[in-house]
Amino acid sequence: MTAVAPRIATLAVVGVGLIGGSFALALKAAGEARTIVGIGRGRANLDQALARGIIDRAVTLDADWTSELADADLVLLATPVAQFPGLFAALAGRLPAHAIVTDAGSTKQDVIAAARLHLRNAISRFVPGHPIAGTEHTGAHAAFATLYRDRNVVLTPLAETDPTAIAMVASLWTACGAQVRELDPAVHDGIFAAVSHLPHLLAFALVDQLAARPDADELFRYAASGFRDFTRIAAGSPEMWRDVALANRDALLVEIDAYRGELDRIAAMVAASDGAALEAVFTRAAAARRAWGAKNAGTPAVPADGPRER
Amino acid sequence: MTAVAPRIATLAVVGVGLIGGSFALALKAAGEARTIVGIGRGRANLDQALARGIIDRAVTLDADWTSELADADLVLLATPVAQFPGLFAALAGRLPAHAIVTDAGSTKQDVIAAARLHLRNAISRFVPGHPIAGTEHTGAHAAFATLYRDRNVVLTPLAETDPTAIAMVASLWTACGAQVRELDPAVHDGIFAAVSHLPHLLAFALVDQLAARPDADELFRYAASGFRDFTRIAAGSPEMWRDVALANRDALLVEIDAYRGELDRIAAMVAASDGAALEAVFTRAAAARRAWGAKNAGTPAVPADGPRER
Repeated sequence: MTAVAPRIATLAVVGVGLIGGSFALALKAAGEARTIVGIGRGRANLDQALARGIIDRAVTLDADWTSELADADLVLLATPVAQFPGLFAALAGRLPAHAIVTDAGSTKQDVIAAARLHLRNAISRFVPGHPIAGTEHTGAHAAFATLYRDRNVVLTPLAETDPTAIAMVASLWTACGAQVRELDPAVHDGIFAAVSHLPHLLAFALVDQLAARPDADELFRYAASGFRDFTRIAAGSPEMWRDVALANRDALLVEIDAYRGELDRIAAMVAASDGAALEAVFTRAAAARRAWGAKNAGTPAVPADGPRER
Repeated sequence: MTAVAPRIATLAVVGVGLIGGSFALALKAAGEARTIVGIGRGRANLDQALARGIIDRAVTLDADWTSELADADLVLLATPVAQFPGLFAALAGRLPAHAIVTDAGSTKQDVIAAARLHLRNAISRFVPGHPIAGTEHTGAHAAFATLYRDRNVVLTPLAETDPTAIAMVASLWTACGAQVRELDPAVHDGIFAAVSHLPHLLAFALVDQLAARPDADELFRYAASGFRDFTRIAAGSPEMWRDVALANRDALLVEIDAYRGELDRIAAMVAASDGAALEAVFTRAAAARRAWGAKNAGTPAVPADGPRER
């Protein structure tokens, strides 16, 4: 389905990785964006994005990249979140009057605080966002146009956010195939600390702990499909997850504490050989997971023909 | 590849679920077993196994099932491990002189202790085994002939185990497509506490803890593909995992303690906003997981057309 004329004449994507690159590909496929400027740290990744047709022009962050924004209608920030304050500072005063800024950061309160600090009066044109999609793969080579199909995108607009800007960003994500929802930023950060940031940290912890042992090779030799799925997310970007852990520190610490409490209770059941209590925990969990799986089938993280491992 | 004559005239499978049923299907497909007697607790599951052609005769455990073993060449125990002591006790004195007994239990030291206690002189014909395969699905309807293809099967024979019996069991698993390895029983239990039993417990803990919250529906609404894979194993059989946790209690407690230590260290890094330390942990883990994934690609838990969720 191609729009009659692209609503976005020029889209600027800062960070042309899996997330930013897939947004660009999806908007091009939907006929919603004409020219895409890719901005990033590494020349090699930008060259790959150019070669794949994800972007039309490329500029590195160590160049005068904001001068490329003169005709930008929309700027998407899709780098690890620790870079956002510097990006907002660079954007301040260089944004065209009509341009909308949005982001794809996994945390929202810290991003909003940085945007307020640097964008000042332009804050009304910033639409905080978080596409709930991704794979453990990174970089422009991992991007694909259907990443957002049937996935949630959460927007966390502020009281002063321009409703027209919200509507535009929402409708562009809809054009990518996503379901758009709105949440309060603090509620967002609490939810994702529990269902995303904590599980990532738990998976990193398990693999790190096993990998550090003298018998790691022997252990990994016998690890099977359960281990494969449980630890898939531990292959994710260390930098991105470092930034998420720092940015959402308080909510994450609450979740780690809650989890340690649960683990202590279960350890006590194991130590006491309390089979009935263990079975009750496992039964509740299995029922909840099966119900969730039944409701959430058919939304794979990668296309069926895409890579499962690298 | 069909053998000239089945080496197993009569195979008895106690517990015709995913594991026992798939062994039966694989041996039939390989032409290694002629008649298969299915023995189990539930009539409905046995009827399904009969209807699917997994077994040829069925008898429930509350009937005089050991009288069906008069012509058995091989008996596979594939129930949850807590049932094994009762099964060994029932088998003692009823086994034909030539019959071999093997099992598919996830733990080995406890199984061997129960076998020694009950089988007494027949212990030389017991070959302890553990196929490293499975999905989160259970019951005869989940069984499929290729479950063991390219998967590890660990045998943990004793000093007194008849070498002929070991060779027969090993070659039958090879006929199922598996790679057969031998381990000391205690080493086996330590390895699987780390790479299988602990991850299952961690996944059950996370889902149980989230499911118990008042805002569980909201949390689960935003859970995505990372959560899906991390928690897939929490849909497993509560009874089976209860038995595993109890049977491998000591090794599992060692692993829980080690994991809590790692989690405490990481929580301290988050609390201190120590990005360098977090990135170091995540980088080590991601490198180890990617290396493991590259070596262990292409061995899916279920056939490509099989269910991922239920």
